[in-house]
Amino acid sequence: MAENTAGLRGITAGETALCTVGQSGTGLTYRGYDIHDLAEHAEFEEVAYLLLYGRLPTRTQLEAYRERLQGMRELPQPLREVLERLPADAHPMDVMRTGCSVLGNLETEADFSEQDWHIDRMLATFPAMITYWYRYARDGERIDTRSSEPSIGGHFLSLLHGKPADPLHVKVMHASLILYAEHEFNASTFTARTCASTLSDIHSCITGAIGTLRGPLHGGANEAAMAMIEQWRTPDEAERELMGMFERKEKIMGFGHAIYRKQDPRNAIIKAWSRQLAEQVGDDHLYPVSERVEAVMDREKGLFPNADFFHASAYHFMGIPTPLFTPIFVISRLTGWAAHVKEQRAKNRIIRPSADYTGPELQPWVPIEERGE
Amino acid sequence: MAENTAGLRGITAGETALCTVGQSGTGLTYRGYDIHDLAEHAEFEEVAYLLLYGRLPTRTQLEAYRERLQGMRELPQPLREVLERLPADAHPMDVMRTGCSVLGNLETEADFSEQDWHIDRMLATFPAMITYWYRYARDGERIDTRSSEPSIGGHFLSLLHGKPADPLHVKVMHASLILYAEHEFNASTFTARTCASTLSDIHSCITGAIGTLRGPLHGGANEAAMAMIEQWRTPDEAERELMGMFERKEKIMGFGHAIYRKQDPRNAIIKAWSRQLAEQVGDDHLYPVSERVEAVMDREKGLFPNADFFHASAYHFMGIPTPLFTPIFVISRLTGWAAHVKEQRAKNRIIRPSADYTGPELQPWVPIEERGE
Ligand SMILES: CC(C)(COP(=O)(O)OP(=O)(O)OC[C@H]1O[C@@H](n2cnc3c(N)ncnc32)[C@H](O)[C@@H]1OP(=O)(O)O)[C@@H](O)C(=O)NCCC(=O)NCCS
Ligand SMILES: CC(C)(COP(=O)(O)OP(=O)(O)OC[C@H]1O[C@@H](n2cnc3c(N)ncnc32)[C@H](O)[C@@H]1OP(=O)(O)O)[C@@H](O)C(=O)NCCC(=O)NCCS
Repeated sequence: MAENTAGLRGITAGETALCTVGQSGTGLTYRGYDIHDLAEHAEFEEVAYLLLYGRLPTRTQLEAYRERLQGMRELPQPLREVLERLPADAHPMDVMRTGCSVLGNLETEADFSEQDWHIDRMLATFPAMITYWYRYARDGERIDTRSSEPSIGGHFLSLLHGKPADPLHVKVMHASLILYAEHEFNASTFTARTCASTLSDIHSCITGAIGTLRGPLHGGANEAAMAMIEQWRTPDEAERELMGMFERKEKIMGFGHAIYRKQDPRNAIIKAWSRQLAEQVGDDHLYPVSERVEAVMDREKGLFPNADFFHASAYHFMGIPTPLFTPIFVISRLTGWAAHVKEQRAKNRIIRPSADYTGPELQPWVPIEERGE
Repeated sequence: MAENTAGLRGITAGETALCTVGQSGTGLTYRGYDIHDLAEHAEFEEVAYLLLYGRLPTRTQLEAYRERLQGMRELPQPLREVLERLPADAHPMDVMRTGCSVLGNLETEADFSEQDWHIDRMLATFPAMITYWYRYARDGERIDTRSSEPSIGGHFLSLLHGKPADPLHVKVMHASLILYAEHEFNASTFTARTCASTLSDIHSCITGAIGTLRGPLHGGANEAAMAMIEQWRTPDEAERELMGMFERKEKIMGFGHAIYRKQDPRNAIIKAWSRQLAEQVGDDHLYPVSERVEAVMDREKGLFPNADFFHASAYHFMGIPTPLFTPIFVISRLTGWAAHVKEQRAKNRIIRPSADYTGPELQPWVPIEERGE
């Protein structure tokens, strides 16, 4: 296999009307709208609607959509009982993957005509899924998974912290969930489409995508970035330690990208929010450390922060525990995954590539007595 | 996108030393051994060992391997409690997907150096996972998931039926599990590799693969084939009904293949076992109906049975309920999936293809007040 097709890089694997990466606007569009416009003007529910239903909602549509989602937030009782049986030290992405899979047992998609209902239901319950488990595992508390927060981001924060969400944090959550919502044929989305191509059900597609997002080269990068920067107390210490990592040829999480070559347009947006949150909490080291890491990576490696890097500090400033970073990515990317599943179903052929064979030639059978000891 | 690259058909997506499909021998080899030799001479545990560890085991190795697997059959208590909470009318593939996902919470792969242990554990527990749920849901019985059956196939049958497995059935299970074990870059295996390419854990990879196999265009085909043939009482009725299906342009499940063009080498093998089982149970219509379907498909469509078609009648003759057909495929294909995950990890690049964009051009933001009603 030619080196440049490893990982299918640059190989067209299908069509999409959802997203462009690195082609027009500032490098990321959802259904033709530039990510800067979306992150600045829209709420996450508007973007979810855009991705899933093909156009921006009118005010009436948006309000109806928000109300529908709000009415679907309660977790089924057997799902709660399962979440209570997952260990307190489980990996939160394993909890999400399991919660989604269990939901598929309790409310199975019988027919593709039901797909939108199930997608809305997941959108409504995912924040509760992760926080119900987290609060039960940590505090032994069985939280009420309904809340009066109108937005998905605010709902998540209020369940996590057990109090109404701070208005600035709700704004940041809108921007963050919008930035993470969709990114063309990334590995987790491509997993969802491959699953959809066998005409499997929506919960299988999303469960598979969650498992793929879990990897540290993909969604897991924001947590890994946090683990890295929180070790360092000053920018100078960060710079020294980074130089050591370069020498040991370690990968720096939250940097680089499979498609973008010069910058990731999502970075400047989340970075600005991280700076504003740093001011709010009076941070004097995590943000400066992050800025220095960015500068040193550029100077030494020509590598730029991707969407994940400044998400680490931003989430941290909002009091979100590090292990819940990637589950937030799930709550958001669910919209992109589901929109891709709908597209794949509308024009399907089973995804089944070929492989270059590197194994032994045809060989004769060797009976077990003749295989030596 | 050119029509012929839809579904990545014919596009090389990576390397493998595990399997050739349609290239040498009679059209299917595992690590260079022809499928006919394997299905005729080997036991499933031998083939699992071959796929996972790279060579055929000596007798001592095989015995140690079988004993190791036998010692790992008991399900963790929290997993049993979860299985008891899944509805009696759940889709068995949803149960398998969930059981595997839960196991990943209870026994998380902390490091890739642990991978073989987790793979063996799944191989040992999957038969119990599906039968524990099935017997509890149907009979309210909490079965002991250990058994003295040395083989995985015999273990499955004995848990399902609550009595020692018939020796002929154990033989058929060896052949069946060998036939299903591995098939290069099919959709579920490719899902497992895409997941592995983000460096995610083994349970995520296998959970995703189960969800993909669930689709009726993939593993679900053996159940769909059963549902079709069991409606027909005579070969003539089958022929008449088939002609109607052709007219309505319906797909005939268990026929056709993404790679094979003339025949599927697995078909003759499982067909011979199905005939022998038909004799054992004194069947006088299901096997003749299946043979007629094969003949009519060839005459009218030039399509041949794939691995799934005669599996339907074979499993039925062994008293296996139709909804458990695809879970048996899981118990077998786990070996291929896991071997592919190991390969992917050994030489990894994140799998991230490109898409042809078919959506709207860059468009200006429209404030919500200006979107009309
Ligand atoms: C995102 C990522 C997986 C893309 O993988 P890719 O398409 O294979 O990457 P590229 O082809 O651009 O890599 C080019 C070179 O830069 C190096 N590189 C890329 N990202 C790097 C990083 N974060 N730190 C150090 N080196 C990096 C690669 O190792 C490669 O070097 P090599 O040619 O000597 O092997 C990769 O950049 C990465 O692992 N980043 C860190 C994880 C992360 O932040 N993921 C979130 C993505 S949104
Ligand atoms: C296996 C399968 C998904 C392969 O898909 P594929 O690679 O897209 O199939 P092909 O390119 O060979 O199809 C060629 C033509 O034969 C038709 N065809 C293939 N299998 C068919 C079947 N089982 N019944 C009726 N028509 C079939 C296709 O619809 C296609 O017709 P078109 O060109 O008019 O659309 C397909 O054969 C199928 O759906 N089979 C039934 C499900 C099944 O048994 N799956 C288990 C596979 S091991």
